[in-house]
Amino acid sequence: MGNTFGNIFKLTSFGESHGPAMGGVVDGMPAGIKIDCDKVQRIVDLRRPGQSQVVTQRDEPDRVELLSGIFEGMSLGTPIGFVVRNRDARSSDYDHMRDIYRPSHADYAWQAKYGIRDHRGGGRASARETVSRVVAGALAMQVLEQLGIQVLAYTTQIGNVVLQPGSSLDWNKTWNNAVRCPDETIARCMQQALDEARAQGDTLGGKVCCAIFGVKPGLGEPVFNKLNAALAQAMMSIPAAKSFDMGAGRALTSMRGSETLDTMHALDGGLVYEHNFSGGIQGGISNGNNIFMEVGFKPVPTLMRNIDTIDTRGNTVTFNPGGRHDVCVVPRAVSVVQAMAAMVLLDHYLLAKTNHL
Amino acid sequence: MGNTFGNIFKLTSFGESHGPAMGGVVDGMPAGIKIDCDKVQRIVDLRRPGQSQVVTQRDEPDRVELLSGIFEGMSLGTPIGFVVRNRDARSSDYDHMRDIYRPSHADYAWQAKYGIRDHRGGGRASARETVSRVVAGALAMQVLEQLGIQVLAYTTQIGNVVLQPGSSLDWNKTWNNAVRCPDETIARCMQQALDEARAQGDTLGGKVCCAIFGVKPGLGEPVFNKLNAALAQAMMSIPAAKSFDMGAGRALTSMRGSETLDTMHALDGGLVYEHNFSGGIQGGISNGNNIFMEVGFKPVPTLMRNIDTIDTRGNTVTFNPGGRHDVCVVPRAVSVVQAMAAMVLLDHYLLAKTNHL
Amino acid sequence: MGNTFGNIFKLTSFGESHGPAMGGVVDGMPAGIKIDCDKVQRIVDLRRPGQSQVVTQRDEPDRVELLSGIFEGMSLGTPIGFVVRNRDARSSDYDHMRDIYRPSHADYAWQAKYGIRDHRGGGRASARETVSRVVAGALAMQVLEQLGIQVLAYTTQIGNVVLQPGSSLDWNKTWNNAVRCPDETIARCMQQALDEARAQGDTLGGKVCCAIFGVKPGLGEPVFNKLNAALAQAMMSIPAAKSFDMGAGRALTSMRGSETLDTMHALDGGLVYEHNFSGGIQGGISNGNNIFMEVGFKPVPTLMRNIDTIDTRGNTVTFNPGGRHDVCVVPRAVSVVQAMAAMVLLDHYLLAKTNHL
Amino acid sequence: MGNTFGNIFKLTSFGESHGPAMGGVVDGMPAGIKIDCDKVQRIVDLRRPGQSQVVTQRDEPDRVELLSGIFEGMSLGTPIGFVVRNRDARSSDYDHMRDIYRPSHADYAWQAKYGIRDHRGGGRASARETVSRVVAGALAMQVLEQLGIQVLAYTTQIGNVVLQPGSSLDWNKTWNNAVRCPDETIARCMQQALDEARAQGDTLGGKVCCAIFGVKPGLGEPVFNKLNAALAQAMMSIPAAKSFDMGAGRALTSMRGSETLDTMHALDGGLVYEHNFSGGIQGGISNGNNIFMEVGFKPVPTLMRNIDTIDTRGNTVTFNPGGRHDVCVVPRAVSVVQAMAAMVLLDHYLLAKTNHL
Repeated sequence: MGNTFGNIFKLTSFGESHGPAMGGVVDGMPAGIKIDCDKVQRIVDLRRPGQSQVVTQRDEPDRVELLSGIFEGMSLGTPIGFVVRNRDARSSDYDHMRDIYRPSHADYAWQAKYGIRDHRGGGRASARETVSRVVAGALAMQVLEQLGIQVLAYTTQIGNVVLQPGSSLDWNKTWNNAVRCPDETIARCMQQALDEARAQGDTLGGKVCCAIFGVKPGLGEPVFNKLNAALAQAMMSIPAAKSFDMGAGRALTSMRGSETLDTMHALDGGLVYEHNFSGGIQGGISNGNNIFMEVGFKPVPTLMRNIDTIDTRGNTVTFNPGGRHDVCVVPRAVSVVQAMAAMVLLDHYLLAKTNHL
Repeated sequence: MGNTFGNIFKLTSFGESHGPAMGGVVDGMPAGIKIDCDKVQRIVDLRRPGQSQVVTQRDEPDRVELLSGIFEGMSLGTPIGFVVRNRDARSSDYDHMRDIYRPSHADYAWQAKYGIRDHRGGGRASARETVSRVVAGALAMQVLEQLGIQVLAYTTQIGNVVLQPGSSLDWNKTWNNAVRCPDETIARCMQQALDEARAQGDTLGGKVCCAIFGVKPGLGEPVFNKLNAALAQAMMSIPAAKSFDMGAGRALTSMRGSETLDTMHALDGGLVYEHNFSGGIQGGISNGNNIFMEVGFKPVPTLMRNIDTIDTRGNTVTFNPGGRHDVCVVPRAVSVVQAMAAMVLLDHYLLAKTNHL
Repeated sequence: MGNTFGNIFKLTSFGESHGPAMGGVVDGMPAGIKIDCDKVQRIVDLRRPGQSQVVTQRDEPDRVELLSGIFEGMSLGTPIGFVVRNRDARSSDYDHMRDIYRPSHADYAWQAKYGIRDHRGGGRASARETVSRVVAGALAMQVLEQLGIQVLAYTTQIGNVVLQPGSSLDWNKTWNNAVRCPDETIARCMQQALDEARAQGDTLGGKVCCAIFGVKPGLGEPVFNKLNAALAQAMMSIPAAKSFDMGAGRALTSMRGSETLDTMHALDGGLVYEHNFSGGIQGGISNGNNIFMEVGFKPVPTLMRNIDTIDTRGNTVTFNPGGRHDVCVVPRAVSVVQAMAAMVLLDHYLLAKTNHL
Repeated sequence: MGNTFGNIFKLTSFGESHGPAMGGVVDGMPAGIKIDCDKVQRIVDLRRPGQSQVVTQRDEPDRVELLSGIFEGMSLGTPIGFVVRNRDARSSDYDHMRDIYRPSHADYAWQAKYGIRDHRGGGRASARETVSRVVAGALAMQVLEQLGIQVLAYTTQIGNVVLQPGSSLDWNKTWNNAVRCPDETIARCMQQALDEARAQGDTLGGKVCCAIFGVKPGLGEPVFNKLNAALAQAMMSIPAAKSFDMGAGRALTSMRGSETLDTMHALDGGLVYEHNFSGGIQGGISNGNNIFMEVGFKPVPTLMRNIDTIDTRGNTVTFNPGGRHDVCVVPRAVSVVQAMAAMVLLDHYLLAKTNHL
């Protein structure tokens, strides 16, 4: 049920944080697409834990093994199965968490739902699950490239450090720093905020912007599967995501209609909006303008200090989380936001092909 | 494609604003539920246009005809087909819009997608489409009542008038005023803001809060179909929706982890959070606390004045929208937010039954 | 759940035999297709009851009301809602059946499943449900025509009267007789067999062949959604269907491989098989040869005589079905077989568009 | 697309015959079920190639690696990912088949569909794909056992040797012989027929019966997803399947209604049919009687002799298939029929839970 994403281009994923492997199946990959497997690996590497002090120190090589669907460097149109082994799974780190429910974590809700859970590192509720999304997203992006569609994601806020919109950005710099912010000055401030939080055993939240260029008008299905609705589901399904803004988003809610009037200009048979307040989507369908949205993430609830919580019998207990945790999910979430957006765009590109004979 | 919503409890809807009828099919209604058809009508009436000066003056009786699936007052478990006739469809009002694309409307995007569109009142892109959602939501709510689940929605912002969270609210008052705000003082201010905007031919946006009480822990599917992700899709699929916040939402993004620590208390075999920052959902699964979220809507882009726009050949033209439009979608969106939340909750309640033998 | 059929081109249907109406929603109709609404009605008329003595004498005008998705004679790409009113529903004919389970009917199974049922004429288990399939199939056929695909169905067996394969057939004659057999001599024999059975208060079964011309190679999805598997599901979902043969079907099971070797000839960039034993599908995918299959139907279990059965309390009772019933479902099933095949073909045509960028 | 099967209990599979691995993801496994991994392996072993002279001599250990969803011997309710490595893939055996289309194989149809194919052993069109079905079926059967449901499959025909229905059978003997027939005398005749065919370089077809015991009334969804329709799709999706009979199947088509009248007897609050002609399903819903059906398979089209065929440029060529092939798919199809039936039954068991609150 909840482990498949998409309508035509679909990811079905599996894996617990401390089980033998993460993995999944990408179904609906169009046939005859040149697939660069090394590039998939390089994109997965960008999300990899253990790369800086601000993310979990768990050391996972995150080697992606592509098991099917690719033949002599080309996609066959058949499903692409893949596996990413869990290596550095120090399960014993988690023995003391078998019988407690960590606050603001999924522990209790999963136990209530299933009556059983893998307590080690959150089991399937762990953000480690997102590695499968990034593999699928990396495959989707190789297809989107051929369509001239580019999906970018970058950090716009960590704690109180905010990258103001409107800045002219050099996207190539996004991946040059550990916080995934294309403005190097702001990136340094973000890094500093993270260092301070870490020193205090504290954590931070933040925001990720996603911008998509080159989308032709006409993607998005009417009514329930609007392109923005699909993107909202995609983003809110990422662990720790708490808010979603489409285009100018909430800023519009307190503006007057006369302020949000967005002049259209005919250009090359299409339309260009002066402000593009709607973020490239109207009535749920892409209008050919750039698509952009912002996703907000809460701070990691696991602090590096003793925390009061309750155990499975309802008693209050104090525990020290130990383990290896991110100070802030935002830097790694950038890869996941990008991957989810790429999957949605490709899925809707393929869906839109069925609108006509 | 885009016209079905849900996994088990599903609405498939149809209808253009100025075609013969709106309608749909509700599949997955559990069998043996007492259905009060008059109550369905009363809930649809609350969304009905023409009820106050702030909403469209189109006069639609919105008579719901339930055509199947109910026998001697009980649900059969078979699909419930329904039709709501379009009566007051002054199609000629729209003749001058056949060849233009209204700014910030779906006109151009739909034309680009399908190569054809019903230009009358936006066709299927009209908010009139939401009447089918409210019918389905009204049916879902009758089931939820039997489960002790209550879904409330109310206006929290119109233009710059904001209902601050934390106020003690009397939900019964929500439907007493035209703006659907349970605080009567704030409601009057909202009404005044709308009157002013209307006098100026302007429009406003705003926000709707949705609160859900009585949900047991364990609803929501892991990973992609998290309860919050399903709610996000549901809400962002409503016309004019631009932002979504789950629980404390974006406020969390600039807080430190230590500030968002939410103490758990064991209660009656379950857990109660002191602040409930997460809004009743963790790891995508309900935790038994109250669920709440907020949806932001942009101002109606159709002003009651001449607007510059372009026609289907790319020429700039001036047009006067005429027709009958809402000054603000928020008051009527309250019914739709409530309906969508009800459908999501019932769908996930039924899905969760399959987690165990 | 069970009331939606298809992946891209989808029918969601509703309606009980003696409720106010049958109907449905066709979603996924490609945009810009010229729709001849009168032709839809004419195809529905071919399935209509009350047309001859061999089918139920229930007199239903079966007027199809198309409520959306069509604008100025063209499909909009939006869902097509439709309603067919139930007129001649003499519900009181069924009062004596409220508390009994008719043998070999769905009465008991539905009661066991839902704990409630509409006993009047079988409720939703009635073959009257198939009118919605025929409406959707008639719409699909208008699209298929534009693709050069022709879907034919005709009766090949009633009781012991069999139309031998290999006869040269004039398809235009299929609809000239009440039994829907294109060979007029055989048709007369079939008619005679039906008349005799009716005179004896007895009923007959039979078979329907479906042949599809003009399908390009490449339709059908691998593994689980093979074109033949989708057709099998489609056909076995028709009330009273009990057997399905693809191509030469069961005849192949007792042949040796050397006897079934089917020589291929290259023709116009494609392949033509000498015998086409496989019926135009291999590995679940169309190969460009004609597609054909046969569906077997059991005799109507409702005889026009007293029958022993049991009531809802487990007591044996004798009852006389009364009501108005078909002597044999086959003549009317021809329309339904054709409709289901048309929907499957169009659905897979659209699906196959997503195999490539 | 085509690589996912089921609604609630779902298998998504992947893998080409000569790629690195076969595998899949089982989603929707209920939580808290004791899983015996060794038993899964033993059931997969029964389908394994290389076990007798009548099946392909390809030597695959078919070691099933379960990668997730199981924790301390219990199902977690999360997806179960699994991989079965391809070991004995002598790809060079297939070099001479890169540019030809084997008659009655999927080669041409797949090439036409995707424009690319893995020619080695049929790629994903190979029956090797069914190993993933058997893994998922073995998992489903462990759940069904807890529900008291038993799914049996066995060979009823190979070539002209037929096991007559009505024989009293000892199911335990099914797996004692290479042809999977519970009647040892018939099994020997079948074996002899296979030996003869093999000696002549020929191949045979046959039939498999599937019988399901212990199903409560009420499984199966109305109209399109009838239990028999789902079973038909499941069975016809198996490579080489050409016919499907539900219950007494085609035998009913030439009987009179009065001959098929099936007396019902009340028993333990349910009903027992005297003949059970319908095979335990009426109106698409189980009625509590034993479910049975029969699936027909064509002979393997690859003979062990020179065959005329055409190459990818349309030229006629003679080729010798070489490779290692089954003389008859039926003995190994028994495992697959059983697996597919088990998946359908569990899926519908879980679906039926949503019919009521």
